[in-house]
Amino acid sequence: MEFVSGVKEKEDLTISQLLEESRIGTEVKVRGAIHSIRDMGDIAFVVLRTREGLLQTICEEGKCQKSIKELKDADTVEVCGTLLREDRAPNQIELRLMDVQILSEPAEPMPLNISKWKMNASLEAKLNMRPIALRNVKERAKFRIQEGIVRAFRDFLYTKGFTEIHTPKLGAKSAEGGANLFRLEYFHRPAILQQSPQFYKQMMVGVFDRVFETGPVFRAEKHNTKRHLNEYTSLDFEMGYIDDFSEIMDMETGFLQYMVQLLQKDYSHELELLQVKLPKVDRIPRVPFMEAKELVSQKYNRQIRNPFDLEPEEEHLIGQYFKEEYDADFVFVTHYPSKKRPFYAMDDPADIRYTLSFDLLFHGMEITTGGQRIHDYHALMEKIAARGMEAEGMDQYLDTFKHGMPPHGGLGIGLERLTMKLVGEDNVRETTLFPRDMGRLEP
Amino acid sequence: MEFVSGVKEKEDLTISQLLEESRIGTEVKVRGAIHSIRDMGDIAFVVLRTREGLLQTICEEGKCQKSIKELKDADTVEVCGTLLREDRAPNQIELRLMDVQILSEPAEPMPLNISKWKMNASLEAKLNMRPIALRNVKERAKFRIQEGIVRAFRDFLYTKGFTEIHTPKLGAKSAEGGANLFRLEYFHRPAILQQSPQFYKQMMVGVFDRVFETGPVFRAEKHNTKRHLNEYTSLDFEMGYIDDFSEIMDMETGFLQYMVQLLQKDYSHELELLQVKLPKVDRIPRVPFMEAKELVSQKYNRQIRNPFDLEPEEEHLIGQYFKEEYDADFVFVTHYPSKKRPFYAMDDPADIRYTLSFDLLFHGMEITTGGQRIHDYHALMEKIAARGMEAEGMDQYLDTFKHGMPPHGGLGIGLERLTMKLVGEDNVRETTLFPRDMGRLEP
Repeated sequence: MEFVSGVKEKEDLTISQLLEESRIGTEVKVRGAIHSIRDMGDIAFVVLRTREGLLQTICEEGKCQKSIKELKDADTVEVCGTLLREDRAPNQIELRLMDVQILSEPAEPMPLNISKWKMNASLEAKLNMRPIALRNVKERAKFRIQEGIVRAFRDFLYTKGFTEIHTPKLGAKSAEGGANLFRLEYFHRPAILQQSPQFYKQMMVGVFDRVFETGPVFRAEKHNTKRHLNEYTSLDFEMGYIDDFSEIMDMETGFLQYMVQLLQKDYSHELELLQVKLPKVDRIPRVPFMEAKELVSQKYNRQIRNPFDLEPEEEHLIGQYFKEEYDADFVFVTHYPSKKRPFYAMDDPADIRYTLSFDLLFHGMEITTGGQRIHDYHALMEKIAARGMEAEGMDQYLDTFKHGMPPHGGLGIGLERLTMKLVGEDNVRETTLFPRDMGRLEP
Repeated sequence: MEFVSGVKEKEDLTISQLLEESRIGTEVKVRGAIHSIRDMGDIAFVVLRTREGLLQTICEEGKCQKSIKELKDADTVEVCGTLLREDRAPNQIELRLMDVQILSEPAEPMPLNISKWKMNASLEAKLNMRPIALRNVKERAKFRIQEGIVRAFRDFLYTKGFTEIHTPKLGAKSAEGGANLFRLEYFHRPAILQQSPQFYKQMMVGVFDRVFETGPVFRAEKHNTKRHLNEYTSLDFEMGYIDDFSEIMDMETGFLQYMVQLLQKDYSHELELLQVKLPKVDRIPRVPFMEAKELVSQKYNRQIRNPFDLEPEEEHLIGQYFKEEYDADFVFVTHYPSKKRPFYAMDDPADIRYTLSFDLLFHGMEITTGGQRIHDYHALMEKIAARGMEAEGMDQYLDTFKHGMPPHGGLGIGLERLTMKLVGEDNVRETTLFPRDMGRLEP
């Protein structure tokens, strides 16, 4: 009988392994895709793309068993050669090739020049050829940073006693209800795609006290803007036994601080590649909604048109105000008007026109919505009645409160928006692997 | 201006903090839900449920400012008392109460006796009252272990150079196609819910070499069995530059080894609670499909009825065979017939009736399907033509191969099934937070 006993060492090396001091001067094997070829006649520079970055190799006619004529862009290869120091090459190393083995070949030439430092392609073209465009090292670096963000979110919350949950995306009824739901038939019954794990994470506070989820949410909103997607990844948490809704903001700030540390530690290569300047997260100003409106109205001489909501331009100016006045990258705007928050939002006992809630703005764009929730069954039923809502279909959610729930609150962070602001893009599609918008359902 | 500067220390302590040696004899604060009350007259045992487990407290009439008459099941409370050693109590500690502050109260008595060690309720009843039933400590422990599995999967793959990706669940076309898709309307266009991230993870091998995703998949299968769900969490990975499909099994075995270690280290409390005996993962037997069929046919005197597929009973017997003969909890069954695998599966060059693929059985149940994929564009087009399939709608997927892809393969693990087998349940709904099956779309 044969047995499988775990991961075996491979002969081919990664870039981190090549960078170990003792490798210089030795013969090594590396695998990767041919990213670019610069043929100078007798000598050619063949750049390989590996998961850890680019590697310069030199193919000299007569010294390498394979002729440069036999190689082309997008071949995947195993190369064998001598590792040398070369200050002008990526990572200050290069490989003098002795042999090249072709592992696979493309059937057609590349439709995009992915080896250019900045690809000369429109967003539309990049999205249409997404699997190819992402082979550009700057394009893919954005998604490595996105990985770091999610990883930081989870790792930080694990240390704070949160349990990760997986809640269903198919349901009979949704938290916010209404027009923004995708609808489908589920074995002859009407169903919807969840636009948020809100109900589920609240119900699970009664079980685990603190929970989080990182998963897709679906919004059938007819917005076709630079900051809207119809499917996105939401980083959600919900925490019980809070004294005050400010604890939710404390927790988010703790996450952002941990995120910045993790990115510096494990994603420095990508940060450098994209020239990302990490935001300041040691202390984040917080300002009540009405005060924020007035501050920007005064400073930028702008009339307040809608007292119940922030227009995108107002959010932008709030960001600008706090950058100018406090050198702040983030700002918590608190106490949103009750009538613009969902029924489960906890009203401020000091002034019930407002809620114990907040948005977090990053360079003037909302990346988080959060707040304290109503935990008392009777209070929840009163709010539902006062809004003239139907409690029908929410039985399980409401039953949870009937049987006791601690004071709690939480938030949802839009992963793609946070990534976009972090890497300095201005369209959320740039930091979405395969965006879904009103016009785009493929690839 | 007010600022938010991160997580602040709280006055109330967790069970881990209570277990620090120096706390014994001191006055402490703890928050939790009243899990059960045993009223003995002058004295009452009040058990609190906290996220880290149960805590026994003692409320003595006259010594505690709150009377036991004022407390009831499912109140959430902050208690203050003296911490003492008590060998008969959970974690060998108890709290002599001095004061109790009620944070929230239930509106109605509990519909289930969640404080019983084993709840006296049918699966149907438990699922109908899921948010309440999960408050039972054994019920919730299963999902803590589930967290450990996912965490191990990600953490192990990070160390192996995999990048985490988030691929869309809404699409125009799916990897396996056909009848098992949920369909919906997406802004006046037909759309489907992805039944697997297969196409996306393969396309991303061309970008990141090694990728993984942990997310929901949707299958409109009309199976109503103990092991089928219509929505489940899939742990997927895909790796490039492989020499042989056995590397995929090596990687999965490495994950399982890491998982067992992580569970022992960080989830020992839950393993003990559920009396889980962790499976043996040091070496896992592998056996070709046809050989496995013959082995069980001979040993258990069972006729081979379908040479192309494994019936559930056959899987069960294969599990039994390898337990009896090799004391193995897992077995890799390799080389499944080509006609039962999807078009993108790589045929075995030694015998093209079979594929370079495998299933992993855990105690006789399939928990993983994986294998090497075709990476050559022309070979892929030939396979599609040979099957009489339409290439239409797969342009982006096929274009990726047109522009070069390394040899690669991967797998998908059903999280709920793996959890179920690990904790010794026999219905996958027991280890799904909110199961979706043909009859269940709520809660």
